[in-house]
Amino acid sequence: MDVRQVESGNEGIENGWSLQEQTIAHYCFDLAYEREIAGLMRSVRDRTSSITTVDDIWHLHDFLSARRHNVDGKYDFRYPFLIMVFAQLVKEGWLQLQELEGLDSLKRAKIAALSKM
Amino acid sequence: MDVRQVESGNEGIENGWSLQEQTIAHYCFDLAYEREIAGLMRSVRDRTSSITTVDDIWHLHDFLSARRHNVDGKYDFRYPFLIMVFAQLVKEGWLQLQELEGLDSLKRAKIAALSKM
Repeated sequence: MDVRQVESGNEGIENGWSLQEQTIAHYCFDLAYEREIAGLMRSVRDRTSSITTVDDIWHLHDFLSARRHNVDGKYDFRYPFLIMVFAQLVKEGWLQLQELEGLDSLKRAKIAALSKM
Repeated sequence: MDVRQVESGNEGIENGWSLQEQTIAHYCFDLAYEREIAGLMRSVRDRTSSITTVDDIWHLHDFLSARRHNVDGKYDFRYPFLIMVFAQLVKEGWLQLQELEGLDSLKRAKIAALSKM
C-alpha cells in the first residue's frame, strides 16, 4: 500500500471523525445549543412574568443556577466525548437522530443506543 | 429604689431596645425589606424584557446571585447588629432617617453617622 495514499485518505481526520463528519457535528452541536438557549429564554420570560413574591425571585435564581451548570457541562465539543454529548442532546429532545445523518452508521447506532439509556 | 419598679421598667427590654423601639425596629426593617424586594422585582422584569443573547441570561443569573447574597447578609434582625443594619439601609436609600423616629436619640445619631460612612 502506498503510504502517501493512506496519509492522504486520513487527512483532517480527528479522533475518527472525517472532515464531513466534523462539519455535521459542528452544525448539529450549534443547532441543539441554539434550540436549548431559545427554550431557556422562553422559560425565563414565563417565570419572570409570574413573579409575585421574593421566593419566586429566588426560585428563578435556583432555576438559572441549575440550567447554567447543566448547559456549561453538557456542551463540550471535544471529539472523544461527542458521541455521549449527542446521545444526551437526542435524549433531551434538542436534536433528532435524523439530523445526524452523514455520520457513519456505527456512530449513529451508538448515539441511538446511548440516548435511550 | 424599689426593685420591682426597676424590673417592671426594664420589662421586655432586649439589648437596650425598649418594647416601643422593638416595634418601630420591626416595622422599619420590614418596610425597607419590602421596598428593596419590590425594586428587585422591577429590575428582574426590566432585565428579562431585554434578554436577547445567552450572555444576557447569565448576566441575569450573576445579578441575582449578587443580590441574593447581599439581601441574605444584610437583613439580620438581631438587636446587637440593628444599628449597623439600619445605617446600611439608610445609606442605600431603602429607609429614611425620619422613619426611625421613636428610637432614642443616641441610636438615631449612631445610625445617621454610620450611614454617611
